[in-house]
Amino acid sequence: MSENQTEFIMTNKLYMLPCSMGDSDLNTIIPTNIQEKISEIKIYFVENIRTARRFLKQVDKSIVIDDIDFYELDKNTDQRIIESYVKIIRNNDTAIMSEAGCPGIADPGSKLVNLAHQYDDVQVVPCVGPSSILLSLIASGLNGQNFVFHGYLPVKNNERIKAIKDLNTNSRRLSQTQIFIETPYRNSKLIDDLIKYSDDNAKLCLAANITTDDEFIKTRSIKKWKNNKPELNKIPCVFLLLNK
Amino acid sequence: MSENQTEFIMTNKLYMLPCSMGDSDLNTIIPTNIQEKISEIKIYFVENIRTARRFLKQVDKSIVIDDIDFYELDKNTDQRIIESYVKIIRNNDTAIMSEAGCPGIADPGSKLVNLAHQYDDVQVVPCVGPSSILLSLIASGLNGQNFVFHGYLPVKNNERIKAIKDLNTNSRRLSQTQIFIETPYRNSKLIDDLIKYSDDNAKLCLAANITTDDEFIKTRSIKKWKNNKPELNKIPCVFLLLNK
Repeated sequence: MSENQTEFIMTNKLYMLPCSMGDSDLNTIIPTNIQEKISEIKIYFVENIRTARRFLKQVDKSIVIDDIDFYELDKNTDQRIIESYVKIIRNNDTAIMSEAGCPGIADPGSKLVNLAHQYDDVQVVPCVGPSSILLSLIASGLNGQNFVFHGYLPVKNNERIKAIKDLNTNSRRLSQTQIFIETPYRNSKLIDDLIKYSDDNAKLCLAANITTDDEFIKTRSIKKWKNNKPELNKIPCVFLLLNK
Repeated sequence: MSENQTEFIMTNKLYMLPCSMGDSDLNTIIPTNIQEKISEIKIYFVENIRTARRFLKQVDKSIVIDDIDFYELDKNTDQRIIESYVKIIRNNDTAIMSEAGCPGIADPGSKLVNLAHQYDDVQVVPCVGPSSILLSLIASGLNGQNFVFHGYLPVKNNERIKAIKDLNTNSRRLSQTQIFIETPYRNSKLIDDLIKYSDDNAKLCLAANITTDDEFIKTRSIKKWKNNKPELNKIPCVFLLLNK
């Protein structure tokens, strides 16, 4: 590190810790040192306290849940409450955990991380774990040198159709993989719409149940999916489209 | 799996296996079951054969390198040669490995994966490992619900300045985190340009040496970086910008 960096006095760490996504063998998705870190941390900011408790017990049966402080950090958590967490992260080693996979991606954890960067005595430490977005992109065979993640597409019909057409146009113009997700019970409707409003030659990757025994990842042209629509309703799924 | 899926006869697996990025403890970045898979596979498609050999020895000292077939798959590999690999992946369990981190993201591995999806007897299996892009996004505190990865910015001065201005405009318009990388020896020049041509209030995350002991990840406003320019030349770095 150069002199410029040594000015940062980083005393407390805010770990970004992963959790599982469905029934996966922990040793397939989380490195052992990260599992150890998960059982060491005593202060957690979590999207869902019940899920977090259950997951910690899965990582380490001997863990005493009552010794751990859990603070809620979900999409409804008030900004003032998140600000009140700053004192805690500046005085302790703490961690953020999502409800599934890696925190800070497609979840509200980043609001606290954002505040953490305002203080030079907090070091944010990202930890390796499963990310459905990253894993699906890796396995899709689509362009990994240029990609965009949009989160959810609009729910309203006309807005959603426009969004799908825009995905196709932008993907073709920029040679850019378009990644998005959907509430699982609306998957079938989204797949119908994608098939209906995308270019026939566009490639669509459907990546479902990632990291579980039922993992299903397949990239095909829209034309090919038309004749063989998969049944992925109510299953967690990532959608990736490349039109070129 | 539904009836629609059972029609796929997936007999051989193409694993997307991670490797390290610098001197990291393997147990911090690669799950044990994935390390085992790395030592089991006997046919590898790799970006750099020498790096791959050294990494395999690091994962498992007892590994017999001469028992493993390595095929080159880098940005210069001819498409016809990549096509000749199809027969191999359809008849064996094989793996793709990048020179650093996860394959298929910002590397040429996706060309073979793309072909693999044309055959229903090959199953592409993404494996958890370190991705500097994902880890830096997680730790940046910037918007993880909407982000884009551009790869490298243009090298030519006027094109690069235009690209930086576009990043700022698009980030503001879409509330979208802009992620990009640079050849390490040009980092200083890029940081200078980013400071010069970005909005003062835009947030820039510099994420260097990810997963190593020298990891440095900090998000600050352009205005703040101006007075405290870090020295990151020749160090692998990911750049993330959010202007809002």
